[in-house]
Formats: sequence, C-alpha cells, structure tokens
Amino acid sequence: MRLRIDLAYDGSGFRGWARQPELRTVQEDLERAIDTVLRTTGTALTVAGRTDAGVHARGQVAHVDLEEYLVSAAAGRSHEPTLDAVRRRLNGVLDSDVRILRVTEAPPGFDARFSALWRRYVYRIADQPQLVDPLARDHVLTWSRPLDLDAMNAAAQDLLGEHDFSAFCRKREGATTIRTLQDLYWERTSTGIAAATVRADAFCHNMVRSLVGCLVAVGEGRREQGWPAEVLARGLRDPAVKVIHAHGLTLEEVAYPPDGDLAARAREARVVRTLNPTPCD
Amino acid sequence: MRLRIDLAYDGSGFRGWARQPELRTVQEDLERAIDTVLRTTGTALTVAGRTDAGVHARGQVAHVDLEEYLVSAAAGRSHEPTLDAVRRRLNGVLDSDVRILRVTEAPPGFDARFSALWRRYVYRIADQPQLVDPLARDHVLTWSRPLDLDAMNAAAQDLLGEHDFSAFCRKREGATTIRTLQDLYWERTSTGIAAATVRADAFCHNMVRSLVGCLVAVGEGRREQGWPAEVLARGLRDPAVKVIHAHGLTLEEVAYPPDGDLAARAREARVVRTLNPTPCD
Repeated sequence: MRLRIDLAYDGSGFRGWARQPELRTVQEDLERAIDTVLRTTGTALTVAGRTDAGVHARGQVAHVDLEEYLVSAAAGRSHEPTLDAVRRRLNGVLDSDVRILRVTEAPPGFDARFSALWRRYVYRIADQPQLVDPLARDHVLTWSRPLDLDAMNAAAQDLLGEHDFSAFCRKREGATTIRTLQDLYWERTSTGIAAATVRADAFCHNMVRSLVGCLVAVGEGRREQGWPAEVLARGLRDPAVKVIHAHGLTLEEVAYPPDGDLAARAREARVVRTLNPTPCD
Repeated sequence: MRLRIDLAYDGSGFRGWARQPELRTVQEDLERAIDTVLRTTGTALTVAGRTDAGVHARGQVAHVDLEEYLVSAAAGRSHEPTLDAVRRRLNGVLDSDVRILRVTEAPPGFDARFSALWRRYVYRIADQPQLVDPLARDHVLTWSRPLDLDAMNAAAQDLLGEHDFSAFCRKREGATTIRTLQDLYWERTSTGIAAATVRADAFCHNMVRSLVGCLVAVGEGRREQGWPAEVLARGLRDPAVKVIHAHGLTLEEVAYPPDGDLAARAREARVVRTLNPTPCD
C-alpha cells in the first residue's frame, strides 16, 4: 500500500531533505523511523520538495510504499485507527524537530513529487529592529535595512508566468529550467515582518532564494525595479544576484489535483521533468 | 536619565528574569550588556514582569537610571539618533535569544513595574497532532488530548474581576494575592492552535500557569465547568490544580497610562504592592 505522509520540520539541525553520507538529513531520519516502527529495512521515500540545508517545512508531503501487513502490525493493539497509531509511533521515534502531521492511504495514481500541481514557499524577513522576535529567530531572517515592499512587488510582476529561470538556478547538465511562476508577492504580516509568497508548478535548485535575493536588492534600493526582469531575460546566472540565507525559507504547502486527475498529472510532470532531471522540485 | 527598554526573549535558555547566583538569567545578561556598552558597573534594572524559568517575552518592559554622559559616550560617533545607537550596540553584545526592540527616554514619573496598568500573557497549546509546528515547539505546548474551548471559556467567566487569587498563587508570607483579572479567554488562532489570553493589573507567582492548568483540566473533560470557581472560592491551593509547563507562556504586552498619569499610578501601585511584596508582578 502507498502511504501519503504530511510532515513539518525545523530545518536548522538538518543538511536538507535528501540523504547524504554521514550527514543528518530529514529523509534519513524519517526512513530510519519507518524502518524502526514497521520492523523493516530499506524504506525509500519520495518527496514533493527536496529542501536545501537549513530550509524549513510546514507542509511537506512524501509517499512511501509498504507492505500492508507491516503497517497493521505496527499499529499493534491500539484502539486508534491504524494510520493514526502509525503516525503516533513515528512521532515517538523521531526527534522533536520533525513532526508527522498526518498519515493517510494515498489515492490511486498519487505520487508526492510528480502529482503535485504547485509548491508554495514563504520567505520571512524582519527588516526593522522592533520586528525581531527571538522566538522566531530560526525561521525569520533579520535584515538591517528597511525594505520597500511596493518596489519589490513592482519588480516581481515581470517575473510571473512561464519562463526559463536559468538565471536564478544552479546549473545542472541537461536539466530543464523552464518553470511557471504563479505567485511572487510581498506583504507585511500581522506582526509587521516582510513575507514573500512564492508559488510555482515546481522549482529548480536555489530558485526561490535567488528570486528573493534579487528582489531584496531592489527593496533596499541597491538596484532599480527593472533589474530582476533584465536578469531573467539574459538567462545567465548573474553573480550580483545573491542566493539569500536558507533559514528564512519555509515550504508551506504542496497542492494536488482531485483524486481522479492524480495519475494523469503525474504522467505529464514525469515526462517534462524526468527526461531532464533536476536536483530540486 | 531614566531609559525605558522594550525587549523580547526566548526563555528556553534562561532561569527566568530575576538574577540568581551562578544561573543564566535575562536580568543578569542585560545588566552586564549595559555595563559593557556604557563602560559602567552595577547597573540595576527594574522590570514589569519577573518571568519564571522557561517563560518567554515579546513585550517585556524594563527601566534603568544612567548618567547621561555615559549614554552619549556609548552612542559614539554614530550618525543614528543616540538611543538607536545604544539599542544597536546592546544587541551586538547580547546573545540572539534576547533582543532589545526599543530604547527610549522614559517620561517623568515612569516606573516599568509600578506604573504599569496591566500585563497581558498568552498561553499556547497545540492540542491535535496536525497542529504541531516544529518551528514553534519552544513556545507552544503539545497536548495529546483535544481541548473544548467553549467549556474552558464558560469556566473562565467565573474568575474574572477582583478576587483573592491565593488558590492559584505560590504562597509567600505577608504577600497580598488580591488581583483584578481583566481578560481570560481561549480562542483558536489562524493556524488552529488553542491560545489563552490572560490580562490582569498584576499577577502573583505561578498565577497564570495555575489558571491555565485549572482550565485545561476542564477543557479535556477531567473536571466540571464549575470547578475553577470552586477552587477560587476556597482560597486554598488545591493540589489537583497543576501549574502547567512554563514553555507555552509568553508575556506579550505591558500597558501604561498616558504620561501625565504615570507618577500617580506608580504611587498607587507601590502602596498596594510594596507593603505586601510579591515575588512576581
């Protein structure tokens, strides 16, 4: 059976999602937790967003294929529904910086990575001293100069839609960098910090942090409003575009189509992206 | 000159506000930072809310009396306003779990403790597995049973107003435990967690956490709605009332009267509370 796992993590203590030898990663911690709770080995997760080192998630989604009898056995004699018991036991094994929010049986055709319609990230910045909250210091960047959100929003307009975002992506041989940017806007939250919402069908490596870094240069007045569009149009990485710090970034949500469209969506995305594999969605 | 200092801290790494030998406290860290930045010794802060070990603050207020020439000298040749430079230099010396939000010259008659009209605390609980946010785990309590907010709000009604809260306070010889509870209500935040707002002219020791612990017993169905009022009326600590964990509690705001009323308010509060000193406001 295929399980859909919704999870959240504080990325501070991880070298990102993807397994790397001898480094603590979310993927390894969760695969090991599943191995422990289900008394199995070699569990392999597929994830919607392969977050970088230091990036957080509140709405990450993964899937895993498991033998049904192992899942039932893991729930034991609990009075809860089977998958609630599995979620509770996984949380009991995991450290407190990763939490499993839900475990559900995936509908037919569901693929955490390829069925996704879009990913939504939020980048948070406290750009004035009185906005700095020590309780949020691990996931909100402190910036020493005030940001002009109107200027950043005007600049962001030119980046929306389908483009080749190679100017904002770490280059990989043969990987497509064409993406559809659906949302890119800044707003002040209820506490006054600056928050950028970035939503696209998928992202290539470093893309969110490069886009945010580029707009911040506009927001603090170092660059003109037209500069991000010029960078995009040139199609080449510009060393003046800084990949902004990881810890201000959080994957907030991954959206999927209605159950009946999951398989078709996965086929379509797999053709576009597997032929040209990218290191990051 | 008297300075008003607005500050915030993550209480996780502190043994509370008040100085204690050989333990890390917010008071000691901040007094030492002022000594360093102003090249002085023996700085003594007065604070609005002497928070316990593990309790956080977003809106803490303190005052300190300093020689004006030391304040000017500390600002150095900065182009900023003097007190902005002092704030920036203090933040440069302090660890990142304490942040100075504002430094202003206190108006005549201002006393951070005795001029305060009220203190507002918020207690936060994630009472369902899907509400647990690893990014907030240091200041939101995880509770394994869902809470009935309507039942807690009904029970809270009976506690509002001026009462002798000795049933909810750690006993100290000769200390008054009469307080005016102005707000005590629960609501679901935008993210779904349960948050209790607790506002009073002042609090005695353990009072907020005892009130919340008492209501949580109602919210999870272990006690009847009328129980908190019975405890209050008996006027004796009831061992069945649990002082709930510190880390879910945050001092959010301290309010002061208009400048012209500061001195009168301080005289009034000093008479009521200094004659019967309490360990906590």
